Amino acid sequence: MSETELHPEAQQPPESELDEDDRLKPEFVSAVLEAVEAGDAETAHARVAPLHPADIADLVELTPAELRPALAAAISDLIDGDVLAEMNDWVREALVDALEPHQVADIAAELDTDDAVAIIEDMDVEDQREVLRALDPDDRAAIEEALSYPEETAGRLMQRELIAVPEHWTVGDVLDYLRGHDELATDFWEIFVVDPAHHPVGTCALSWILRTPRAVSMSDVMKREQTLIPVDMDQEEVALRFQKYALISAAVVDASGRLVGMITVDDVVHIISEEAGEDILRLSGAGEGDINEPLFDSYKGRVRWLITNLITAMVPATIVFFFDATIAQKAVLAALMPIVAGVGGNAGTQTLAVTVRALATNQLTQSNTIRTIRREISIAVLNGVTVATAIGIAVGLLGVVISDLSSNGALPLVIAAAMLANILIAGLAGVLVPVALERFRQDPAVASSIFVTMVTDSMGFLAFLGLATMSGLVG
Amino acid sequence: MSETELHPEAQQPPESELDEDDRLKPEFVSAVLEAVEAGDAETAHARVAPLHPADIADLVELTPAELRPALAAAISDLIDGDVLAEMNDWVREALVDALEPHQVADIAAELDTDDAVAIIEDMDVEDQREVLRALDPDDRAAIEEALSYPEETAGRLMQRELIAVPEHWTVGDVLDYLRGHDELATDFWEIFVVDPAHHPVGTCALSWILRTPRAVSMSDVMKREQTLIPVDMDQEEVALRFQKYALISAAVVDASGRLVGMITVDDVVHIISEEAGEDILRLSGAGEGDINEPLFDSYKGRVRWLITNLITAMVPATIVFFFDATIAQKAVLAALMPIVAGVGGNAGTQTLAVTVRALATNQLTQSNTIRTIRREISIAVLNGVTVATAIGIAVGLLGVVISDLSSNGALPLVIAAAMLANILIAGLAGVLVPVALERFRQDPAVASSIFVTMVTDSMGFLAFLGLATMSGLVG
Repeated sequence: MSETELHPEAQQPPESELDEDDRLKPEFVSAVLEAVEAGDAETAHARVAPLHPADIADLVELTPAELRPALAAAISDLIDGDVLAEMNDWVREALVDALEPHQVADIAAELDTDDAVAIIEDMDVEDQREVLRALDPDDRAAIEEALSYPEETAGRLMQRELIAVPEHWTVGDVLDYLRGHDELATDFWEIFVVDPAHHPVGTCALSWILRTPRAVSMSDVMKREQTLIPVDMDQEEVALRFQKYALISAAVVDASGRLVGMITVDDVVHIISEEAGEDILRLSGAGEGDINEPLFDSYKGRVRWLITNLITAMVPATIVFFFDATIAQKAVLAALMPIVAGVGGNAGTQTLAVTVRALATNQLTQSNTIRTIRREISIAVLNGVTVATAIGIAVGLLGVVISDLSSNGALPLVIAAAMLANILIAGLAGVLVPVALERFRQDPAVASSIFVTMVTDSMGFLAFLGLATMSGLVG
Repeated sequence: MSETELHPEAQQPPESELDEDDRLKPEFVSAVLEAVEAGDAETAHARVAPLHPADIADLVELTPAELRPALAAAISDLIDGDVLAEMNDWVREALVDALEPHQVADIAAELDTDDAVAIIEDMDVEDQREVLRALDPDDRAAIEEALSYPEETAGRLMQRELIAVPEHWTVGDVLDYLRGHDELATDFWEIFVVDPAHHPVGTCALSWILRTPRAVSMSDVMKREQTLIPVDMDQEEVALRFQKYALISAAVVDASGRLVGMITVDDVVHIISEEAGEDILRLSGAGEGDINEPLFDSYKGRVRWLITNLITAMVPATIVFFFDATIAQKAVLAALMPIVAGVGGNAGTQTLAVTVRALATNQLTQSNTIRTIRREISIAVLNGVTVATAIGIAVGLLGVVISDLSSNGALPLVIAAAMLANILIAGLAGVLVPVALERFRQDPAVASSIFVTMVTDSMGFLAFLGLATMSGLVG
């Protein structure tokens, strides 16, 4: 058997429509869209047909909204449930709205419950009802039950298609059962073992079953310690639990502990990514922050934050206003004061980002809160001393060349002291504000940054202008 | 079979040491640490023993650094490879440093290659060599090969323990092989089918094997389309690929297309979360942003950013400095100018956050760049008009009560126009800066925010003070 590099290229597809980052190449997207615009549905279809469902979903997202109906018409048979399940929520919603209820029902029927629910849950109540009517009774019951759980809970996320077997079965019984029943689920990673009341008593990875002789009882193969997911658990908690315990799938149980569904890791992966990426959008007040969100929704989400910011900005402005006599005498203070406020704001944002991440990943709990606050204060002291020294020296040196700065020797000291004070306050606010919000069960990412910036702006101006006035720099 | 709620509580462990968010309860942590401090290793061990490895790892993280050696000594037999694999990098590194090389070797020997590598890769070269010497030749060869790949690539992430079978085997052959060879891997989710040169030709989920009669050939069960991971692929790309194609495991191939290892989704989940959460830390210049990072490292990472910020802050300060005559005449301008700069900065940060996320998730590609820029400009126009109107009216109304503001009727118009201009510039910079960085293959999250803030501060001051001077408000 020759193991040399005989035909390595035979392993690769003949030519890829993807760039090195797995994104569709812009040339490919333009070629398809040009065909669609030219009314050449056949060419468009031929190019799209070999793509993976996830890439077809990407293609629809990358298509300008006004061209999407034409594209969808050209490749309608390719847009199946797998494609819709991979598609951005906003894009899918618009696309599904354009379909007839019976078309949606056809697509939903071929999907696992969780994917079908994801497609149906955003529709109008009326359209939803029509789709449900068009489904066969079993599918309808499964989807109606899923819709009865609150959004973003395990009940919405789970699929009901799973394999559950009694404890007394042998590995051979399981194999015969799986081979003999065509209607069973085809994609699963673990088998759940249940007692007569349908309570899960153990979980068995498929690899263990494959490695075990037929005669062995399931109760001897399964693992008894298992992570159960309550049906009403928030999807963010579900994602953290999958991550923490490195789960592939997990049983979902109702309030009485009965097995009602299963969640698999592939349904959780995009939630993990979404939740981890959400903090940055929340901290900046960017709302949903999705580039496919309708424009007016994005505007509403962001402008609310900017108006709030406008109001909180009145606090530092008022502080400056009280020092107008000082500034009128020495206008250079107005040029320097934004530096003190801005760098302080940055130091606050750093601490805030670290704290918000640590809270979101459950790394920062009550047990190490005091330690973490002490740690952030220590860093603030080190940062404060370094940056204060730097700005003091810089202003001192500038004073040699710019006469307006040199008129009083106290200015370097004043700005250094104000900077030190502001960075200390920034560190303190940056850790205390999110920790306090979390303690009161509020989202630490949502309101923190506006509040911390207000504090650092106000303290920056107050410390700098106050010290300048007191030190006799003016008057 | 009675399905009523007979003994639902029998499903739950007798009492949980975890709170509703799966975090160790603070009372439990204190109790263990008190026992450790009192020298009562037995009590500490008894309380920790029933915990899941992930929770033991959390416990070590939540323990103050000075107490960790005593805790580790008390529960040394419980700190196995699974616990170390779940532990925060910084905490693990410190713990492993305190162990003898032969202890590390004992732990590494029981792990999959990827987990063993994660423990060994951070050690000194000298200690590394000693650990490798203490391993048996097979394990040593596997780990040495993994270490030969660059850090953060698929080669480091993959495990070499996998099941690969020839195409001509039947399902029955596979079952007999798995049952007959005790030395094979026990935890796997897919079987790889290879040609004689060990090139992967297909992948087979275990559930398909379980559902197929013994006589069927593997080539009829396997899926031929498969996602192969090149061994030198960056781990972030690996994570995106797992996410995009909803993979459970994937074959890793070398440059000649031969199967050399396997990556499973549980190894990728924490990378997905890390990478998605990293942007917020990078945008704020918080470096690694891990609360377990050594204090001095955190200080170095953050202060570099603050000093850079100090330097860029000189640009807007210089602009204000040129208007010192204007400000000396009308000091209230100094109170209002930070509002224009600050709200503009916030608008820029919103656009920046949205753009950075869209780039990181491959939602924003060359195909929709122009459209996304147009979209952000539209939102900026809407935001700008709304916020400019609000600040204009607010300043106009304040002018009725504060004489300093009412001395010239043009002020509301001036501040509104400056605000509109700055929010437009902010929107433009917020999308163009990260897109340009990405185009030049730089990390769009790293330098964007300092640059965007410099632009919005400068433009805010320039537009406001410039318009105030030109409009005849002063002079």
